[in-house]
Amino acid sequence: MTISKISRPVCILGLGLIGGSLLRDLSALDVEVFGFNRSPSGATAAQEEGFDVTTDLVAVLERAATTDALIVLATPMPAIASLLDAIATHAPNCGFTDVVSVKAEVYSLVCDRGMADRYVGGHPMAGTADSGWPASMTGLFKGAAWVVTFDHAYDDPTDTWISLWIDVVHLATLVGAEVIPSRVSAHDQAVARISHLPHIFAEALAITGDNGGALALSLAAGSFRDSTRVAGTHPSLVQAMCETNRDALLIALDEALELLSDARAHLASPENDLSLLIDTGYRSRIRYEARAAGSSGISGRPILRLHPGAPGWVSQLEQAENLGARIDVF
Amino acid sequence: MTISKISRPVCILGLGLIGGSLLRDLSALDVEVFGFNRSPSGATAAQEEGFDVTTDLVAVLERAATTDALIVLATPMPAIASLLDAIATHAPNCGFTDVVSVKAEVYSLVCDRGMADRYVGGHPMAGTADSGWPASMTGLFKGAAWVVTFDHAYDDPTDTWISLWIDVVHLATLVGAEVIPSRVSAHDQAVARISHLPHIFAEALAITGDNGGALALSLAAGSFRDSTRVAGTHPSLVQAMCETNRDALLIALDEALELLSDARAHLASPENDLSLLIDTGYRSRIRYEARAAGSSGISGRPILRLHPGAPGWVSQLEQAENLGARIDVF
Repeated sequence: MTISKISRPVCILGLGLIGGSLLRDLSALDVEVFGFNRSPSGATAAQEEGFDVTTDLVAVLERAATTDALIVLATPMPAIASLLDAIATHAPNCGFTDVVSVKAEVYSLVCDRGMADRYVGGHPMAGTADSGWPASMTGLFKGAAWVVTFDHAYDDPTDTWISLWIDVVHLATLVGAEVIPSRVSAHDQAVARISHLPHIFAEALAITGDNGGALALSLAAGSFRDSTRVAGTHPSLVQAMCETNRDALLIALDEALELLSDARAHLASPENDLSLLIDTGYRSRIRYEARAAGSSGISGRPILRLHPGAPGWVSQLEQAENLGARIDVF
Repeated sequence: MTISKISRPVCILGLGLIGGSLLRDLSALDVEVFGFNRSPSGATAAQEEGFDVTTDLVAVLERAATTDALIVLATPMPAIASLLDAIATHAPNCGFTDVVSVKAEVYSLVCDRGMADRYVGGHPMAGTADSGWPASMTGLFKGAAWVVTFDHAYDDPTDTWISLWIDVVHLATLVGAEVIPSRVSAHDQAVARISHLPHIFAEALAITGDNGGALALSLAAGSFRDSTRVAGTHPSLVQAMCETNRDALLIALDEALELLSDARAHLASPENDLSLLIDTGYRSRIRYEARAAGSSGISGRPILRLHPGAPGWVSQLEQAENLGARIDVF
């Protein structure tokens, strides 16, 4: 594994679960890192722990511009457009990335503003049902997948962009994540299936259980606890990610609804036979377990080494996307 | 809390996750306990750990008859009918309970055989995705809900039955469970919502994620892991419990499908608004968390003290069922 380093300071906008955890990890690694948080309570809490944090957006962006920092947009989706405008005004030459869970919508806002040559999209697949600075922690990204997008690689990108892309990969690798390259559309389709749909299902399960009244809630055990866990996520966060990824979510939801309708028909039929759904679901879960990091901590994701900017690197990225492979840049 | 004791030996038929864990806990408590397992591999493994276990069903039931043991049926549903027949033949005076996750179907088999006056239904809400003797462990039932049914209390039961009912309550309490009384029908409706439906949803989510291919499986993180966990349960166990509880499961499934169809319509509409589902689901999950034992280990279930057989005890049981309350017998 190549040793990761990052060639510039890091400026994090938004110190919630993801941004705050990133600030903690980078600080612990002695990376020069500073941040902005809109809410004074989060900023004050971070300052009290000794972090270099402000509530002054213009000041933090001017500092990023002066130090040529890598800017990380770590706010929920609704704040992204106005942050992009602020970056365009106050840090017009800085490269930036983001950690938003939907990539097409962010990329479209970036392209609308002509900023694609200094943007590399990111999405760490890490989280808990908790949010805000108090939920942030060190080590959150250890072993997690961190998607880094590469759509702009098809647009004859500058060396500056390639160097930015490398820094974003290093940022993720430094905090222990496994970088998986993907184009925005493939990413959004994948996360609709493995994140947004599970959130929608968790909400429906929580409600159906609750409708069973006090007895049902008293009997609820492990299967209910785990299958509804993410229904405890703050509603505005779930709404923002699901609604922003509407088209991909509709495809995944319709697929799941068809599976459930078929299962309902099999259950209600004289045969009363759920084996098709249950056998298929079991095999799918086993395939997932084989890929996920086991209790041993060893990742089941394939690895692919590549040299950014070298001839053929874009087809290597496509191959990694197709395999769900993590990459090691050299 | 009243000190629990049990007035007779315990004979466990089936030493899988539940039966095996019960054997371990009761042994550790110095209760006289012996068991039967159909598969020699499980029986041998238990014997090698020093447990009093056989693969001879007739012998174990004759021993239960001789010692007036409380028999616990701890096999999956498909084996119950033949075990009841064996008990009728070889241990015709023993009281018995079961741990099957569906109660109406078992109760109907019991009543068909005229054995209701020596049966008390049970269901410990504990489990993992693993099964069989190797999955058994001590402490599995600590803090878990353990349903004890009381339908027969309406049939002018004998003192023998009431004493059996008390022993079943003590059995559950001894291993650290919280006893929640329920009639079979209320139980089955509740578990359809909080256990069987989550299993069905987990299967559908696992398949829909898997359909996203290698990239989706590589990106799958906490929400997918937890929401599909029980899809890793052995398919035959999931099938047995869901199909056996068909009527109640259909009601819960239809309710959930209606929630999801409404959400789909809201998502696809020009308003693109999932707030109804998400806000309601969030509030439901918060209500569940308030009832579930917190990290402090303190149960959120209300408690109700009652004296089995005393005047009015049946209406106290109905009240407990309605409140999802745990009981303390004195």
